[in-house]
Amino acid sequence: MTRSRVPLAQYMQACRPEIEQRLDALVRCANEDSGRIYEAMRYSLLAGGKRIRAILMMAVADTLVDSHSHVLDAACALEMVHAYSLIHDDLPCMDNDDFRRGRPTSHRMFGEAMAVLAGDGLLTLAFDTLARIAIEPPVTPERLLSCIGEIARGAGPDGMVGGQALDIANTGNLAITKELLQSIHSRKTGALFRAAIRASAILSGADEHTLARLSRYGEAIGLIFQIRDDILDVIGDAEKTGKPAHSDAAKGKATYPSVVGMRESELLMSQVLSTGRRILEEQGYAGTVLEELLGYAAARDF
Amino acid sequence: MTRSRVPLAQYMQACRPEIEQRLDALVRCANEDSGRIYEAMRYSLLAGGKRIRAILMMAVADTLVDSHSHVLDAACALEMVHAYSLIHDDLPCMDNDDFRRGRPTSHRMFGEAMAVLAGDGLLTLAFDTLARIAIEPPVTPERLLSCIGEIARGAGPDGMVGGQALDIANTGNLAITKELLQSIHSRKTGALFRAAIRASAILSGADEHTLARLSRYGEAIGLIFQIRDDILDVIGDAEKTGKPAHSDAAKGKATYPSVVGMRESELLMSQVLSTGRRILEEQGYAGTVLEELLGYAAARDF
Repeated sequence: MTRSRVPLAQYMQACRPEIEQRLDALVRCANEDSGRIYEAMRYSLLAGGKRIRAILMMAVADTLVDSHSHVLDAACALEMVHAYSLIHDDLPCMDNDDFRRGRPTSHRMFGEAMAVLAGDGLLTLAFDTLARIAIEPPVTPERLLSCIGEIARGAGPDGMVGGQALDIANTGNLAITKELLQSIHSRKTGALFRAAIRASAILSGADEHTLARLSRYGEAIGLIFQIRDDILDVIGDAEKTGKPAHSDAAKGKATYPSVVGMRESELLMSQVLSTGRRILEEQGYAGTVLEELLGYAAARDF
Repeated sequence: MTRSRVPLAQYMQACRPEIEQRLDALVRCANEDSGRIYEAMRYSLLAGGKRIRAILMMAVADTLVDSHSHVLDAACALEMVHAYSLIHDDLPCMDNDDFRRGRPTSHRMFGEAMAVLAGDGLLTLAFDTLARIAIEPPVTPERLLSCIGEIARGAGPDGMVGGQALDIANTGNLAITKELLQSIHSRKTGALFRAAIRASAILSGADEHTLARLSRYGEAIGLIFQIRDDILDVIGDAEKTGKPAHSDAAKGKATYPSVVGMRESELLMSQVLSTGRRILEEQGYAGTVLEELLGYAAARDF
């Protein structure tokens, strides 16, 4: 795991160009007629996200087998799934957002119909990309099938899509409980983080025990991400987040600060942070980029 | 191939309950919280379609290896992909249809946001279903991965989604050529038919030669389907199709009759029908349900 014991900033700086180049190569129009749909897919996918999900997958692989080239395409597929979810989330019938990362959202740029299709296209291309992954050690056909299943379940109706549906069903619900909020977020954000980490561990040949621990780590970092997101929604600074303060809360969405208060949100985050660190320690992964990523998720201001 | 040499009506009658029961079992809510998204997914998926794509996959398997249980889940996944595409097609920003098969469309029933998510959920669940298929002869992990790739490509930006995008980009284009129309339709409808047939043949262990012939058969039956669809749009009978005559043409969509005229549309269809029959004959598949399905696609009135 030498590769996973470098400072996080350096690790990220090394990973990001690999991801960007591979995404650029994977989403290319082979047929002139399809120019427009690829343009829309690339517009959202190559808009310079932080690539946290992909970096997490690479970090898991580097920690387990000191190499990440075998998970690069799966990491790119995860970024496609994430990009699709943002495009559909932004639609007028969903969050109705006009801007993302300082640029017009997909439907503002290409029209609503093309935005729906660009999301559909990215989701489908993610599975095409996964199915094409080279079968070379440590990747076996059985592991790849299991990885595809993990990602599909993490993104599907029992995961991310289910969380979104639950979120929408509860928009404007003022009597939302902490338990329901946890349930929404564990699916909306947590399930895909967990699936990303499990998919990478499976492709890297992790044993059951390691896989179980990394799953709990994935749940922890997913939750940290979501709480931080909700906190940023309150202290939101348009310059940093591209969104005004209380943007989600103003839409009637349940957030941690709106349900349990700011103080308890911060307390909860620090508890989950400790849990995440303890899991890594038990597994002998203290001091890896996986540990640094926990702190990064908790302190980010984007 | 004994099983594939029964009258088509009898074959279909035997297949349909298998498909319906399996779909019903595959799309079930395990978690109370997710009730609404599953309700929306099931509403569209279990609305009593003709299941032509699934039946085609079962017929290919029965013709190749005299059994179809190994492709049943893949056939159900294809029906999920088809159902998702209809939900998204019907959206206000796309075709804006209020009714399908005599019932309110998904967004009329559940709202636009839930309809987008129900489509997303079905597409994702299709890949989850595929990844879980049992690895038992003739299915191998390698064949299953190849099958997943075929379906993803058939449904994705170089297939169905790309065809939809091209269709939308050309709505209202009065100078559409026959070549462009072919290109739109070969992707919008043809690609998924071809993928369905290839996926079933691959799972059944078809050799390269058989796979190539069946691919051409798939393209033929896809084209027949589309031309017949366009002809039905002209002679449309609200009672049979649930849509008034000229419904697509009225929306500015390019159809075969609107581009090449009714006479040439019918001529083209009978040519493709002959091609399809010749391919099956060359392969020794004359007299199977695959042959009958060609005629069925050409004569259907739904």
